[in-house]
Order: sequence, then structure tokens, then C-alpha cells
Amino acid sequence: MKLYELSLSQGRTVSPFVWRTRFCLAHKGLNPERVPISYHDKDQLAFSGQDRVPVLVDGDEVISDSWKIACYLEDAYSFAPSLFDGAQGTALMINKWADHVQLGAMFLLCSPGTYDVTQDEDKPYFAQSRYEWTGKTIDDFRAMEDEALKRTRSALEPIRQTLAEQPFIAGDAPAFADYCVMGGFMWARTTYAGQVLEDGDPVEDWRQRMLDLFEGLGRNALSME
Amino acid sequence: MKLYELSLSQGRTVSPFVWRTRFCLAHKGLNPERVPISYHDKDQLAFSGQDRVPVLVDGDEVISDSWKIACYLEDAYSFAPSLFDGAQGTALMINKWADHVQLGAMFLLCSPGTYDVTQDEDKPYFAQSRYEWTGKTIDDFRAMEDEALKRTRSALEPIRQTLAEQPFIAGDAPAFADYCVMGGFMWARTTYAGQVLEDGDPVEDWRQRMLDLFEGLGRNALSME
Repeated sequence: MKLYELSLSQGRTVSPFVWRTRFCLAHKGLNPERVPISYHDKDQLAFSGQDRVPVLVDGDEVISDSWKIACYLEDAYSFAPSLFDGAQGTALMINKWADHVQLGAMFLLCSPGTYDVTQDEDKPYFAQSRYEWTGKTIDDFRAMEDEALKRTRSALEPIRQTLAEQPFIAGDAPAFADYCVMGGFMWARTTYAGQVLEDGDPVEDWRQRMLDLFEGLGRNALSME
Repeated sequence: MKLYELSLSQGRTVSPFVWRTRFCLAHKGLNPERVPISYHDKDQLAFSGQDRVPVLVDGDEVISDSWKIACYLEDAYSFAPSLFDGAQGTALMINKWADHVQLGAMFLLCSPGTYDVTQDEDKPYFAQSRYEWTGKTIDDFRAMEDEALKRTRSALEPIRQTLAEQPFIAGDAPAFADYCVMGGFMWARTTYAGQVLEDGDPVEDWRQRMLDLFEGLGRNALSME
């Protein structure tokens, strides 16, 4: 089994989607070989029929997209602990919320730091592609830090209220919904040097618990904290 | 079994929280006696230790708050179809999202119509309480209709993306997550005469399916549509 990841300077893994998959694999007790991919060698992903990470190769199976990978793992490794606890439907809604709302806000917050840890040869591509998507330069993003932080904290309100009542988003124990949202926090941890969450925020307490999972899978990653 | 509901002019049921509970009860195959409560006789709820609807009385049990009622029904009627399919944790996150994001937007959209269908003797109380919460008069709310509609449609994006991939928020069949979000749409249906969703929106297709459930529980209610 192989996991193709985006790998930036010093082998840093920043992609929230790759992080979702890494947590899902750990939940299933799987530890595939990790294949680092840089922005400039994305053509190594051509075999998957698309150019985005993560891509999981498991024997003859090639699966891209972190949601599809989670669904694949749930079916193919049904004997291992469940990622969805029978509620794949509501997990998809949380996945869509995380993609659209959480990562929408974190995109503003994390883009400057992601640029900083992108290899020098890929920096022009990275800056240009963000400019084409948004009309903003990396310096424009830097100037928006306060707004991005405010927007990120506000976007997390439904998660905050949930975690005020239970230890994990999925309930008493972590599952896909937690890994999905944690992906975004790993992006922030690996690219943003500031403090995303205020002290005393129940989301911060949860984030610390998540960093400890799987022998510190998240905590031990090269970070900006 | 008795369900205490807010009942406005012509017996209209508008509360999104009562609607959540009505759908949950129907899902469990339960059909309690409905007890109408007006704003001016909320003291009839004093026995529940608080003053908000819904309140469910089941034998010796008195439960208020639509989330707690759903959890009670799931446990007490575990032999009937499940509301959570084993994933109560992620259902709570969707409940928090619906309370904070969906109903936050719909509050702007539905307040004028809720005022209009409030009994005349309660209109001053209704307008005053909204003014105290928000600093806005009913006419201020009316002037914000376009913004409220835009904000409501935008807030629904994670639901829209979910329903583009599966027929119900909970997956192949409706469950708590669907009833929770549908509560807000019933508030709109019973108080707002305009079109909340654009034609072709997957959320509108879902809403039509939801209106048909349980022999037209939602569709047959007195509405503004």
C-alpha cells in the first residue's frame, strides 16, 4: 500500500486532505509507504487520472480524493474499527462543511505560510495559481491575517458548541468527522506560526487530544508551533 | 404522550424546534396529543421547569429541548427505526450547525412573517422581544429581506453539496439530520411567502421529498406557500 502525498520543504506534509487520509489510515491500523510529491512533479500522479493528492494505491486499487479514500477504507477494511459508525451520510455533510466553510476560512490564513514552506522552485507556480483563483497576491493574504483569524474562529462555532458537550465530534471516540476537521488544523499547524484558537476554546482542548492520537501522529509532524 | 407546541393564528405551527420534534416522533411511529400554547400562556409550560417549546410528556417523563427529546425517543423507543443510525455524535454537530448557521440566517428571513401570524394580543410582545435581542424593529427586518434570502441560500452550501450526492442528509433514507434541517424550512414555509430556494437547487428537490414524508406531515400544514 502506498500513499502519495504533497511534500514541501524539509519533507513537510501540509495538505489538509492528505492529513485526513493519514488519520483515517491510522484509525484502520494501516501504515502505507509514503511517496512524497512536489508541486513540480505532479505528473507522477498521472497514473491516477488526475493531479491532486492524496492518492492511495492498494494492490490493484487506485483511489484519489480523501472522501473516496475514506469510503474505500471503510469497505475494504470493514473488520477494522469503523470510520463512520454506520452514518456515512452525515459524515459526508461534515466533510462538505469542512471543505467549504472551515477550509474556505483557513485558505486565507494558511496561504502565506504554505508559500513560505514551498520549495523555492515552486514558489512562482504557487503564488500565480493563488492569484488566478482569488485575484490576491501572497502579500494581500498576509495583510488579511486578522480577518482570516476572525473568520476561521467564527466558522468553527458549530464545532465549538458540539465539543462543549462531548469529547469528540463523532461523540465519545474519534472517527472520520474528527479526522476531517483535524485535517484543516494540521494545515494550520504546519504552515501558520500564530495561535489559531483562543485559550479556553473547547476546540483547542479537542485539538490537543487529536494531536495525541496514534502515538502523536499529528504532534510529531514538522510544524510551525 | 403529549407534545406542547407553540400555536399561532389559525393554529399555525411555526417553531423549527417543534417541527424537528414532530418529524422525529413520526419517524418513531408516535403520534402524541398536541397541546397548543400561545406566547401569552407560556406559563402553562412552568411544570417543565422552563418556558420554551417543544415539551414532550411521556408518562412520568417531561423532556424539553428538541435535541434532548430526540435523544430520549432514541433510547426509550429503541425498537422503532433509529434516528441516529449509531452516530449521535455527528448528529449533534449538524444540530449545532442548524441552530447557529441555518436558523441564524432564517431568523432574519422569517421574523416579519412570524410577527404577521402571531395573534394580535401577542404582537407587541413579539416585536419588543426581537428588538431587545437584535436592536431591529419588524420593519427593519422587512427591509432586509433580500440580504436575508442571500444569506440563507449561502448558509445552505454544505447541505447543497451533500444533497448533490445523496438523496437525504443522513444518506439513502431520512433520519434526525434531515428532520433537524427541515425544521428551519418548515418555519419558512409557515411564515414566509417568497421562494427560499432557487429552481434547480438540490436542496429544493430534497425539501419536496421531505414534505411528502409521513403522509404529507409537512406538506399538509397550514403554510404561506
